[in-house]
Amino acid sequence: MEKPDKICHSLSRRQMMIGTAGVLAAGTALTQLGGMLKSAQAKGSTNEKWPWPYEKLDPVKTAEICYEEWYRVFCGCAVINSVFSQLGEKVGEPYTSFPSDAFVFLEGGMVGWGTVCGSPAGANIVANLIIGPRIAGSPEGHQIANDIMQWYSEAKMPIFKPAKPRIAIDKIVTTTSDSPLCHVSVGKWMEASGHPLKSAERKDRCARVAASTAYRVVELLNDWKDGKYEPTATFSAVKEHGITGQYNCGECHNDVPSPPMPSEKS
Amino acid sequence: MEKPDKICHSLSRRQMMIGTAGVLAAGTALTQLGGMLKSAQAKGSTNEKWPWPYEKLDPVKTAEICYEEWYRVFCGCAVINSVFSQLGEKVGEPYTSFPSDAFVFLEGGMVGWGTVCGSPAGANIVANLIIGPRIAGSPEGHQIANDIMQWYSEAKMPIFKPAKPRIAIDKIVTTTSDSPLCHVSVGKWMEASGHPLKSAERKDRCARVAASTAYRVVELLNDWKDGKYEPTATFSAVKEHGITGQYNCGECHNDVPSPPMPSEKS
Repeated sequence: MEKPDKICHSLSRRQMMIGTAGVLAAGTALTQLGGMLKSAQAKGSTNEKWPWPYEKLDPVKTAEICYEEWYRVFCGCAVINSVFSQLGEKVGEPYTSFPSDAFVFLEGGMVGWGTVCGSPAGANIVANLIIGPRIAGSPEGHQIANDIMQWYSEAKMPIFKPAKPRIAIDKIVTTTSDSPLCHVSVGKWMEASGHPLKSAERKDRCARVAASTAYRVVELLNDWKDGKYEPTATFSAVKEHGITGQYNCGECHNDVPSPPMPSEKS
Repeated sequence: MEKPDKICHSLSRRQMMIGTAGVLAAGTALTQLGGMLKSAQAKGSTNEKWPWPYEKLDPVKTAEICYEEWYRVFCGCAVINSVFSQLGEKVGEPYTSFPSDAFVFLEGGMVGWGTVCGSPAGANIVANLIIGPRIAGSPEGHQIANDIMQWYSEAKMPIFKPAKPRIAIDKIVTTTSDSPLCHVSVGKWMEASGHPLKSAERKDRCARVAASTAYRVVELLNDWKDGKYEPTATFSAVKEHGITGQYNCGECHNDVPSPPMPSEKS
């Protein structure tokens, strides 16, 4: 959806998307981040042989597990556990020995600092642990992470409705964050709903956002397993603007600074 | 350092710090994020018994490894590998089987989206994998993560000077990000230095930021190992402002919105 009030360098988001001439493969875009793209070094770890064995999961069941797990381990860890607990049962190692609960600290945009929402962070950990890093030769984990970041930003959240909700469905307002940041995502929802951070409604909203994200990453992983996965993300701040970032610069910047470009100084 | 032009709800940062009456333990603050603080469930994984065995490391050696690793796996993964590769040699499991390279996707604030800088993200993964999550009964991993977020935001980066720098020392400008976000951190440095994202100088700056962060997290882990660790973070957005976030609201907001508070609606 185009949002004319959210501009960046005088370009609307749609203009930027047209400018990229269709789907921009994240793997290609990321070469702009620099550094050398060597193959992963052999480390002697059996868990660094990718991809990890994957069996297709039911997105609805995964989301239900995630919703319940949120109330134990919060967003990022709930997403990881919802996938890995099932694969631990279906496949076994390396899922059973992965220390998922250590990722509770993803809560609140990383220990309350409001940076990346734990839900996409958890989904991206899952995708990259299963498929492996792009430096190991397969770009799909990286591409799925890029898809998740854009999908999360554009989705009217929360999407998933649990079978046994703790809070009645009609009490959960939905909002679009236009950002993968916890602060922005939860802030817009709090503003629209009037519910404070400590409210039961806010907690249930975040549990459902986590469940929605677990659902989505399983859909993408199932497609990947079937050989049907195609990257859908259409935006790269690095390519479009010469800096890492989001698509809606004007939401934080009054006057958007122009980053130094290669022609100016290298 | 107080920065009078960066205000939040009409309070200077120093006022907020005074308001917290000294050190605010992250574990206490985070209870405000909601959810139930149950003990971690037994999962049958030997790697979810915390703490993992830890032996003190040399911060300088760790930073040198991290600096070199950045050019292979980028910020977040370089921090993880700089610690875990050494512990793999000194201790063995569970470090040797941890799939560190999967975390390459932390690059560019998570696949280029400019969210949390990979360096603090990697350090926080390290601390929480070693010490365990707060729900397992020990708050120090969470507290170290909170310390890292504030330390990173306030530090004049990069701090660490590698023994064999790829770029001469006098070519690396230092800047204070006042944020753990990649976009803000690298953006302020690019503005101050005039070097674009793809420049060799920017890459070396980020390699040194990663090395500086690896150095810092090892200092904190060594203190923890010696029983000398004390949390130093003085800020909690959740406690001070009723929302997850940073300390300098005015840097992105013209008019800082007031989040709904429990007295308004619960």
